[in-house]
Amino acid sequence: MDVHLISNGRQPFSELTKIAMEVESYIDFLHIREREKTAQEIIDGIVMLRRAGFPLSKLVMNDRIDIALVTSITNIHLGYRSIPVEYVKHHFPFLRVGCSVHSLDEARSAEQKGADYVMYGHLFATNSKPNLPPRGIEEIEAIIKQLSVPIVGVGGITPANCTLVRDAGIAVMSGILEVDNPLEQAKLYKGAKGNE
Amino acid sequence: MDVHLISNGRQPFSELTKIAMEVESYIDFLHIREREKTAQEIIDGIVMLRRAGFPLSKLVMNDRIDIALVTSITNIHLGYRSIPVEYVKHHFPFLRVGCSVHSLDEARSAEQKGADYVMYGHLFATNSKPNLPPRGIEEIEAIIKQLSVPIVGVGGITPANCTLVRDAGIAVMSGILEVDNPLEQAKLYKGAKGNE
Repeated sequence: MDVHLISNGRQPFSELTKIAMEVESYIDFLHIREREKTAQEIIDGIVMLRRAGFPLSKLVMNDRIDIALVTSITNIHLGYRSIPVEYVKHHFPFLRVGCSVHSLDEARSAEQKGADYVMYGHLFATNSKPNLPPRGIEEIEAIIKQLSVPIVGVGGITPANCTLVRDAGIAVMSGILEVDNPLEQAKLYKGAKGNE
Repeated sequence: MDVHLISNGRQPFSELTKIAMEVESYIDFLHIREREKTAQEIIDGIVMLRRAGFPLSKLVMNDRIDIALVTSITNIHLGYRSIPVEYVKHHFPFLRVGCSVHSLDEARSAEQKGADYVMYGHLFATNSKPNLPPRGIEEIEAIIKQLSVPIVGVGGITPANCTLVRDAGIAVMSGILEVDNPLEQAKLYKGAKGNE
Protein backbone atom coordinates (compact mmCIF):
# COMPACT_ATOMS: atom_id res chain seq x y z
CA MET A 1 0.00 0.00 0.00
CA ASP A 2 1.03 3.59 -0.62
CA VAL A 3 3.03 5.65 1.82
CA HIS A 4 2.24 9.39 1.71
CA LEU A 5 4.56 11.92 3.26
CA ILE A 6 2.88 15.25 4.12
CA SER A 7 4.83 18.45 4.68
CA ASN A 8 3.83 20.14 7.90
CA GLY A 9 4.77 23.73 7.16
CA ARG A 10 7.43 23.78 9.86
CA GLN A 11 10.42 23.28 7.57
CA PRO A 12 11.99 25.45 4.92
CA PHE A 13 11.85 23.80 1.51
CA SER A 14 15.63 23.27 1.61
CA GLU A 15 15.16 20.92 4.57
CA LEU A 16 12.05 19.27 3.10
CA THR A 17 13.87 18.66 -0.19
CA LYS A 18 16.82 17.06 1.61
CA ILE A 19 14.55 14.63 3.48
CA ALA A 20 12.32 14.01 0.47
CA MET A 21 15.27 13.00 -1.69
CA GLU A 22 16.64 10.76 1.07
CA VAL A 23 13.40 8.83 1.42
CA GLU A 24 12.16 9.11 -2.16
CA SER A 25 12.39 5.38 -2.96
CA TYR A 26 10.29 4.52 0.08
CA ILE A 27 7.42 6.98 -0.36
CA ASP A 28 4.78 7.01 -3.06
CA PHE A 29 3.60 10.60 -2.64
CA LEU A 30 4.82 13.84 -1.12
CA HIS A 31 2.03 16.28 -0.21
CA ILE A 32 2.92 19.97 -0.33
CA ARG A 33 0.79 21.31 2.50
CA GLU A 34 2.05 24.79 3.29
CA ARG A 35 -0.59 27.11 4.64
CA GLU A 36 1.65 29.90 5.84
CA LYS A 37 4.04 30.23 2.92
CA THR A 38 3.26 32.56 0.02
CA ALA A 39 2.44 31.15 -3.42
CA GLN A 40 5.84 32.36 -4.65
CA GLU A 41 7.60 30.49 -1.84
CA ILE A 42 5.63 27.33 -2.59
CA ILE A 43 6.36 27.54 -6.32
CA ASP A 44 10.06 28.10 -5.58
CA GLY A 45 9.98 25.07 -3.27
CA ILE A 46 8.41 22.88 -5.92
CA VAL A 47 11.07 24.03 -8.41
CA MET A 48 13.71 23.15 -5.80
CA LEU A 49 12.28 19.65 -5.34
CA ARG A 50 12.12 19.08 -9.10
CA ARG A 51 15.68 20.32 -9.66
CA ALA A 52 16.88 17.96 -6.95
CA GLY A 53 15.31 15.14 -8.95
CA PHE A 54 12.12 14.52 -7.01
CA PRO A 55 9.59 13.02 -9.46
CA LEU A 56 6.66 15.19 -10.50
CA SER A 57 4.33 12.17 -10.47
CA LYS A 58 4.85 11.76 -6.71
CA LEU A 59 4.01 15.38 -5.85
CA VAL A 60 0.57 16.18 -4.45
CA MET A 61 -0.56 19.80 -4.09
CA ASN A 62 -2.72 20.48 -1.06
CA ASP A 63 -5.71 22.80 -1.53
CA ARG A 64 -4.30 25.17 -4.18
CA ILE A 65 -5.31 23.87 -7.60
CA ASP A 66 -4.00 27.07 -9.17
CA ILE A 67 -0.50 26.41 -7.85
CA ALA A 68 -0.74 22.83 -9.13
CA LEU A 69 -1.73 24.06 -12.58
CA VAL A 70 1.21 26.46 -12.92
CA THR A 71 3.69 23.83 -11.67
CA SER A 72 2.30 20.92 -13.72
CA ILE A 73 1.39 18.91 -10.61
CA THR A 74 -1.53 16.61 -11.42
CA ASN A 75 -2.27 15.25 -7.94
CA ILE A 76 -4.48 17.32 -5.65
CA HIS A 77 -5.49 16.86 -2.04
CA LEU A 78 -8.55 18.71 -0.75
CA GLY A 79 -9.42 19.60 2.84
CA TYR A 80 -12.63 21.03 4.24
CA ARG A 81 -11.57 24.60 3.36
CA SER A 82 -10.79 23.66 -0.27
CA ILE A 83 -12.85 23.87 -3.45
CA PRO A 84 -15.34 20.96 -3.30
CA VAL A 85 -14.24 17.85 -5.19
CA GLU A 86 -17.17 17.90 -7.64
CA TYR A 87 -16.10 21.33 -8.94
CA VAL A 88 -12.50 20.22 -9.25
CA LYS A 89 -13.30 17.00 -11.13
CA HIS A 90 -15.73 18.84 -13.41
CA HIS A 91 -13.39 21.66 -14.38
CA PHE A 92 -10.11 19.76 -14.25
CA PRO A 93 -10.91 16.14 -15.16
CA PHE A 94 -7.21 15.42 -15.80
CA LEU A 95 -6.36 15.89 -12.10
CA ARG A 96 -6.20 13.02 -9.59
CA VAL A 97 -8.03 14.31 -6.54
CA GLY A 98 -8.08 13.01 -2.98
CA CYS A 99 -10.21 14.24 -0.10
CA SER A 100 -9.75 14.33 3.65
CA VAL A 101 -12.75 12.72 5.38
CA HIS A 102 -13.69 12.20 9.00
CA SER A 103 -16.56 9.72 8.82
CA LEU A 104 -18.03 6.94 6.68
CA ASP A 105 -20.70 9.36 5.44
CA GLU A 106 -18.12 11.90 4.33
CA ALA A 107 -16.11 9.14 2.67
CA ARG A 108 -19.14 7.85 0.73
CA SER A 109 -20.05 11.39 -0.31
CA ALA A 110 -16.51 12.15 -1.49
CA GLU A 111 -16.42 8.97 -3.56
CA GLN A 112 -19.82 9.73 -5.11
CA LYS A 113 -18.64 13.22 -6.01
CA GLY A 114 -15.60 11.89 -7.83
CA ALA A 115 -12.76 11.60 -5.29
CA ASP A 116 -10.01 9.32 -6.56
CA TYR A 117 -9.05 8.37 -3.01
CA VAL A 118 -9.98 9.41 0.52
CA MET A 119 -7.81 10.08 3.54
CA TYR A 120 -9.34 9.29 6.93
CA GLY A 121 -8.14 10.34 10.34
CA HIS A 122 -6.83 10.94 12.72
CA LEU A 123 -6.50 7.28 13.63
CA PHE A 124 -4.18 7.46 16.63
CA ALA A 125 -3.20 10.09 19.18
CA THR A 126 -0.95 12.70 17.63
CA ASN A 127 0.76 15.88 18.73
CA SER A 128 -0.65 17.72 15.72
CA LYS A 129 -4.22 17.23 17.05
CA PRO A 130 -3.63 17.35 20.82
CA ASN A 131 -7.18 18.31 21.78
CA LEU A 132 -9.11 15.85 19.62
CA PRO A 133 -9.53 12.22 20.66
CA PRO A 134 -8.29 9.81 17.98
CA ARG A 135 -10.95 8.08 15.89
CA GLY A 136 -9.44 4.62 16.09
CA ILE A 137 -9.65 1.98 13.39
CA GLU A 138 -13.27 0.83 13.49
CA GLU A 139 -14.70 3.37 11.07
CA ILE A 140 -11.83 3.15 8.60
CA GLU A 141 -12.40 -0.62 8.44
CA ALA A 142 -15.99 0.08 7.41
CA ILE A 143 -14.83 2.67 4.87
CA ILE A 144 -12.37 0.20 3.36
CA LYS A 145 -15.15 -2.38 3.01
CA GLN A 146 -17.73 -0.03 1.49
CA LEU A 147 -15.71 2.16 -0.86
CA SER A 148 -14.12 1.20 -4.16
CA VAL A 149 -11.44 3.92 -4.18
CA PRO A 150 -8.19 3.63 -2.23
CA ILE A 151 -8.23 4.64 1.44
CA VAL A 152 -5.36 6.30 3.28
CA GLY A 153 -5.14 6.45 7.07
CA VAL A 154 -3.53 9.42 8.79
CA GLY A 155 -2.72 10.59 12.30
CA GLY A 156 -0.27 9.23 14.84
CA ILE A 157 0.80 6.40 12.55
CA THR A 158 4.02 4.63 13.53
CA PRO A 159 5.88 1.74 11.92
CA ALA A 160 4.46 -0.39 14.75
CA ASN A 161 0.78 0.57 14.50
CA CYS A 162 0.59 1.02 10.73
CA THR A 163 -0.19 -2.63 10.15
CA LEU A 164 -3.29 -2.48 12.36
CA VAL A 165 -5.25 -1.31 9.33
CA ARG A 166 -4.78 -3.59 6.34
CA ASP A 167 -5.63 -2.56 2.79
CA ALA A 168 -5.19 1.14 3.50
CA GLY A 169 -2.29 3.38 2.62
CA ILE A 170 -0.76 5.55 5.29
CA ALA A 171 0.10 9.23 5.54
CA VAL A 172 2.94 10.38 7.77
CA MET A 173 4.18 13.82 8.79
CA SER A 174 6.37 14.06 11.88
CA GLY A 175 7.05 10.30 11.84
CA ILE A 176 9.44 10.93 8.96
CA LEU A 177 9.99 14.70 8.96
CA GLU A 178 10.81 15.17 12.62
CA VAL A 179 12.96 12.17 13.46
CA ASP A 180 16.72 11.76 13.60
CA ASN A 181 16.77 9.09 10.91
CA PRO A 182 14.13 9.80 8.24
CA LEU A 183 15.53 7.17 5.86
CA GLU A 184 15.40 4.37 8.45
CA GLN A 185 11.89 5.36 9.47
CA ALA A 186 10.68 5.54 5.86
CA LYS A 187 12.11 2.05 5.27
CA LEU A 188 10.22 0.76 8.30
CA TYR A 189 6.94 2.30 7.14
CA LYS A 190 7.31 1.06 3.59
CA GLY A 191 8.48 -2.34 4.79
CA ALA A 192 5.43 -2.70 6.98
CA LYS A 193 2.95 -1.62 4.31
CA GLY A 194 4.79 -2.80 1.23
CA ASN A 195 3.59 -6.39 1.32
CA GLU A 196 -0.11 -5.71 1.73
CA MET B 1 -12.17 56.44 -14.25
CA ASP B 2 -13.12 53.11 -12.77
CA VAL B 3 -14.48 52.68 -9.26
CA HIS B 4 -13.52 49.37 -7.63
CA LEU B 5 -15.37 48.08 -4.57
CA ILE B 6 -13.39 45.58 -2.51
CA SER B 7 -15.01 43.20 -0.03
CA ASN B 8 -13.31 43.33 3.34
CA GLY B 9 -14.20 39.92 4.72
CA ARG B 10 -16.27 41.40 7.53
CA GLN B 11 -19.67 40.85 5.93
CA PRO B 12 -21.62 37.71 5.12
CA PHE B 13 -22.24 37.39 1.39
CA SER B 14 -25.94 38.12 1.93
CA GLU B 15 -25.02 41.61 3.14
CA LEU B 16 -22.35 42.11 0.47
CA THR B 17 -24.81 41.06 -2.24
CA LYS B 18 -27.42 43.52 -0.97
CA ILE B 19 -24.97 46.43 -1.08
CA ALA B 20 -23.40 45.32 -4.37
CA MET B 21 -26.78 45.25 -6.09
CA GLU B 22 -27.67 48.66 -4.64
CA VAL B 23 -24.53 50.32 -5.96
CA GLU B 24 -24.01 48.18 -9.08
CA SER B 25 -24.59 51.00 -11.58
CA TYR B 26 -21.98 53.17 -9.89
CA ILE B 27 -19.12 50.68 -9.57
CA ASP B 28 -17.08 49.13 -12.34
CA PHE B 29 -15.66 46.18 -10.40
CA LEU B 30 -16.39 44.23 -7.24
CA HIS B 31 -13.36 42.44 -5.79
CA ILE B 32 -14.05 39.26 -3.85
CA ARG B 33 -11.34 39.42 -1.20
CA GLU B 34 -12.24 36.90 1.48
CA ARG B 35 -9.26 35.45 3.26
CA GLU B 36 -11.07 33.78 6.13
CA LYS B 37 -13.96 32.14 4.33
CA THR B 38 -13.65 28.62 2.91
CA ALA B 39 -13.59 28.05 -0.85
CA GLN B 40 -17.09 26.56 -0.61
CA GLU B 41 -18.37 29.69 1.14
CA ILE B 42 -16.76 31.93 -1.47
CA ILE B 43 -18.20 29.89 -4.36
CA ASP B 44 -21.64 29.99 -2.72
CA GLY B 45 -21.27 33.76 -2.33
CA ILE B 46 -20.38 34.21 -5.99
CA VAL B 47 -23.40 32.11 -6.96
CA MET B 48 -25.53 34.33 -4.70
CA LEU B 49 -24.21 37.51 -6.38
CA ARG B 50 -24.82 36.09 -9.85
CA ARG B 51 -28.35 34.93 -8.99
CA ALA B 52 -29.14 38.41 -7.67
CA GLY B 53 -28.12 39.71 -11.09
CA PHE B 54 -24.65 41.06 -10.40
CA PRO B 55 -22.73 40.97 -13.72
CA LEU B 56 -19.96 38.42 -14.08
CA SER B 57 -17.84 40.90 -16.03
CA LYS B 58 -17.61 43.18 -12.98
CA LEU B 59 -16.45 40.47 -10.58
CA VAL B 60 -12.76 40.29 -9.67
CA MET B 61 -11.39 37.30 -7.76
CA ASN B 62 -8.64 38.13 -5.31
CA ASP B 63 -5.69 35.73 -5.11
CA ARG B 64 -7.47 32.43 -5.85
CA ILE B 65 -7.22 31.75 -9.57
CA ASP B 66 -8.64 28.27 -9.01
CA ILE B 67 -11.85 29.71 -7.55
CA ALA B 68 -12.05 32.13 -10.49
CA LEU B 69 -11.69 29.25 -12.95
CA VAL B 70 -14.50 27.19 -11.44
CA THR B 71 -16.83 30.22 -11.24
CA SER B 72 -16.00 31.62 -14.72
CA ILE B 73 -14.63 34.87 -13.30
CA THR B 74 -12.04 36.27 -15.72
CA ASN B 75 -10.71 39.18 -13.64
CA ILE B 76 -7.98 38.42 -11.10
CA HIS B 77 -6.31 40.61 -8.51
CA LEU B 78 -2.97 39.50 -7.08
CA GLY B 79 -1.36 40.50 -3.79
CA TYR B 80 2.13 39.81 -2.53
CA ARG B 81 1.10 36.35 -1.25
CA SER B 82 -0.41 35.36 -4.61
CA ILE B 83 0.98 33.46 -7.57
CA PRO B 84 3.28 35.89 -9.41
CA VAL B 85 1.68 37.67 -12.36
CA GLU B 86 4.07 36.22 -14.97
CA TYR B 87 2.94 32.66 -14.11
CA VAL B 88 -0.70 33.66 -14.23
CA LYS B 89 -0.45 35.45 -17.59
CA HIS B 90 1.58 32.56 -19.05
CA HIS B 91 -0.76 29.77 -17.98
CA PHE B 92 -4.05 31.66 -18.19
CA PRO B 93 -3.63 34.25 -20.94
CA PHE B 94 -7.41 34.77 -21.13
CA LEU B 95 -7.50 36.28 -17.62
CA ARG B 96 -7.30 40.03 -16.93
CA VAL B 97 -4.84 40.37 -14.08
CA GLY B 98 -4.17 43.28 -11.76
CA CYS B 99 -1.44 43.57 -9.13
CA SER B 100 -1.14 45.42 -5.85
CA VAL B 101 2.05 47.50 -5.80
CA HIS B 102 3.64 49.74 -3.21
CA SER B 103 6.29 51.62 -5.18
CA LEU B 104 7.16 52.85 -8.66
CA ASP B 105 9.66 49.99 -9.01
CA GLU B 106 7.05 47.38 -8.15
CA ALA B 107 4.61 49.03 -10.54
CA ARG B 108 7.13 48.98 -13.41
CA SER B 109 8.00 45.38 -12.69
CA ALA B 110 4.33 44.32 -12.59
CA GLU B 111 3.68 46.00 -15.93
CA GLN B 112 6.73 44.38 -17.51
CA LYS B 113 5.58 40.98 -16.28
CA GLY B 114 2.18 41.40 -17.87
CA ALA B 115 -0.11 43.07 -15.34
CA ASP B 116 -3.18 44.54 -17.02
CA TYR B 117 -3.46 47.22 -14.32
CA VAL B 118 -1.79 48.05 -11.01
CA MET B 119 -3.30 49.13 -7.72
CA TYR B 120 -1.15 51.42 -5.57
CA GLY B 121 -1.62 52.32 -1.95
CA HIS B 122 -2.39 53.10 0.62
CA LEU B 123 -2.73 56.71 -0.40
CA PHE B 124 -4.40 58.21 2.66
CA ALA B 125 -4.73 57.30 6.35
CA THR B 126 -7.10 54.37 6.79
CA ASN B 127 -8.38 52.30 9.67
CA SER B 128 -7.50 49.11 7.80
CA LYS B 129 -3.77 50.04 7.96
CA PRO B 130 -3.61 51.86 11.29
CA ASN B 131 0.11 51.31 11.88
CA LEU B 132 1.44 52.23 8.45
CA PRO B 133 1.87 55.85 7.40
CA PRO B 134 0.00 56.65 4.18
CA ARG B 135 2.11 56.91 1.02
CA GLY B 136 0.49 60.09 -0.26
CA ILE B 137 0.02 60.96 -3.91
CA GLU B 138 3.54 61.82 -5.11
CA GLU B 139 4.57 58.32 -6.16
CA ILE B 140 1.26 57.42 -7.76
CA GLU B 141 1.60 60.54 -9.92
CA ALA B 142 4.96 59.22 -11.14
CA ILE B 143 3.44 55.77 -11.74
CA ILE B 144 0.62 57.28 -13.77
CA LYS B 145 3.14 59.15 -15.91
CA GLN B 146 5.48 56.23 -16.50
CA LEU B 147 3.15 53.26 -16.99
CA SER B 148 0.89 52.51 -19.92
CA VAL B 149 -1.58 50.32 -18.04
CA PRO B 150 -4.40 51.74 -15.90
CA ILE B 151 -3.58 52.72 -12.31
CA VAL B 152 -5.95 52.38 -9.38
CA GLY B 153 -5.40 54.18 -6.08
CA VAL B 154 -6.48 52.59 -2.80
CA GLY B 155 -6.52 53.40 0.90
CA GLY B 156 -8.49 55.99 2.82
CA ILE B 157 -10.14 57.33 -0.31
CA THR B 158 -13.20 59.55 0.25
CA PRO B 159 -15.47 61.32 -2.22
CA ALA B 160 -13.64 64.50 -1.21
CA ASN B 161 -10.03 63.35 -1.66
CA CYS B 162 -10.58 61.01 -4.62
CA THR B 163 -10.11 63.83 -7.11
CA LEU B 164 -6.62 64.65 -5.78
CA VAL B 165 -5.25 62.00 -8.13
CA ARG B 166 -6.40 62.48 -11.68
CA ASP B 167 -6.24 59.76 -14.31
CA ALA B 168 -6.34 56.95 -11.76
CA GLY B 169 -9.23 54.74 -10.81
CA ILE B 170 -10.09 54.32 -7.15
CA ALA B 171 -10.69 51.32 -4.91
CA VAL B 172 -12.96 51.61 -1.90
CA MET B 173 -13.80 49.24 0.94
CA SER B 174 -15.33 50.72 4.10
CA GLY B 175 -16.19 53.98 2.29
CA ILE B 176 -19.07 52.11 0.66
CA LEU B 177 -19.40 48.90 2.68
CA GLU B 178 -19.46 50.40 6.16
CA VAL B 179 -21.56 53.52 5.75
CA ASP B 180 -25.23 54.16 6.40
CA ASN B 181 -25.96 55.09 2.80
CA PRO B 182 -23.86 52.98 0.40
CA LEU B 183 -25.84 54.11 -2.65
CA GLU B 184 -25.34 57.81 -1.93
CA GLN B 185 -21.64 57.29 -1.26
CA ALA B 186 -21.18 55.24 -4.44
CA LYS B 187 -22.87 58.00 -6.43
CA LEU B 188 -20.49 60.57 -4.90
CA TYR B 189 -17.42 58.48 -5.74
CA LYS B 190 -18.57 57.76 -9.28
CA GLY B 191 -19.66 61.34 -9.76
CA ALA B 192 -16.25 62.61 -8.69
CA LYS B 193 -14.29 60.17 -10.89
CA GLY B 194 -16.76 59.77 -13.71
CA ASN B 195 -15.77 62.82 -15.67
CA GLU B 196 -12.02 62.25 -15.71
